[in-house]
Amino acid sequence: MVRLYVDQPLVPEQPVSLTRDQAHYLFGVMRLKAGDALALFNGRDGEFAATVARAGKKDGELAVGARTKPLQMPPDLWLLFAPIKKARTDFIVEKAAELGAARILPVQTDFTNSERIRRDRLQAHAVEAAEQCGGTYVPEVAELEKLGTVLDDWPADRRLIFCDEAQVGAADPLQGPRGKAAILIGPEGGFSEAERARLAALPFVRTISLGPRILRADTAAVAALTLWQAALGDW
Amino acid sequence: MVRLYVDQPLVPEQPVSLTRDQAHYLFGVMRLKAGDALALFNGRDGEFAATVARAGKKDGELAVGARTKPLQMPPDLWLLFAPIKKARTDFIVEKAAELGAARILPVQTDFTNSERIRRDRLQAHAVEAAEQCGGTYVPEVAELEKLGTVLDDWPADRRLIFCDEAQVGAADPLQGPRGKAAILIGPEGGFSEAERARLAALPFVRTISLGPRILRADTAAVAALTLWQAALGDW
Repeated sequence: MVRLYVDQPLVPEQPVSLTRDQAHYLFGVMRLKAGDALALFNGRDGEFAATVARAGKKDGELAVGARTKPLQMPPDLWLLFAPIKKARTDFIVEKAAELGAARILPVQTDFTNSERIRRDRLQAHAVEAAEQCGGTYVPEVAELEKLGTVLDDWPADRRLIFCDEAQVGAADPLQGPRGKAAILIGPEGGFSEAERARLAALPFVRTISLGPRILRADTAAVAALTLWQAALGDW
Repeated sequence: MVRLYVDQPLVPEQPVSLTRDQAHYLFGVMRLKAGDALALFNGRDGEFAATVARAGKKDGELAVGARTKPLQMPPDLWLLFAPIKKARTDFIVEKAAELGAARILPVQTDFTNSERIRRDRLQAHAVEAAEQCGGTYVPEVAELEKLGTVLDDWPADRRLIFCDEAQVGAADPLQGPRGKAAILIGPEGGFSEAERARLAALPFVRTISLGPRILRADTAAVAALTLWQAALGDW
């Protein structure tokens, strides 16, 4: 069953007009025809049954039926990561959406090479991952910000789990308390001494190790999200 | 520090001759010159300090110094997975090596599309991952085999952890006993009814869920390896 994300309110009996990209995806790529069924979600209202009412080359219309699933919010977990090479950055965003991060924040660290990201492209990856994994929520991908700025404005009630690649060794279990949290993954090359000193001194930071091998940034992101979800999240 | 895997015995004071590919990597890509230091490992004898004795365009020689790390075997954990699209298959092998799988077995299931794999290319990915992550061991990538054949010959003392995407929901904690284990990840599209029935009936199989979202095969592989390593492995 094809699942499509649309950025508009979803109400039974209220038709949905398709953009050119959506029409191309549904009718060109997925080969749906008039009368075919699909599922719709918008990240806010849950999932709805729908059928193709009109299939055009550059547009189309969907008939919206009953709501089939309520909105399921993921736990209040953010992922902060330093953008790396394009394919691995895309991968991190896809995996964060699949693994149920609520918000994805690219951060620029002292050793981050890229000074800009294509936020819209990364957001599209998060949408596609949500379409694939059956989720009804799409995490927001924030604009790239300096790590220092993010830490200056940090909400005191959110724990920041710092995955420190310099602490290679026995992994600490991710224990409670449950509640607002964020995972911080460094770039290839790790964090600078200044960053490490600042992180160590912050009261909301908890430092953890991810085992005896040095994980690539994308592996570390998936591993940390998995451990958190299994121990404190919705797994 | 550059780390190089070589497929030959490593003994202090016994020089190592480089293949054309190795010479290209060290001198062309990593720009090492005569006298530069690097680390060597062969998956059997640990890690050794080395220096470039001669750097040629198509060959070269390394001087081998003292052993700097003993061989560190990962836990006796296998990963069985159904090959998927090329980039994601490469990714699974890379991540399995990083996360400390001891052996990687591509299996052909009823819904597997690819009927062959490039075993040598996948093995090269495992080597590269070991070079990157500081490991001294390289997991063997086995030839593609039918899942049924693998199950026919299954060693009774190895637990098979079947990550069942049809069991979306609360994840089961990975509890003991420690000991020989293998993780089985299905292809996109999951397992056939016949496969599921057979797996359910086998005494060495333990079925687990990986949370409330349907994970892609590559995400599921990383998540399951992470959970096993954290609960029962060497993290």
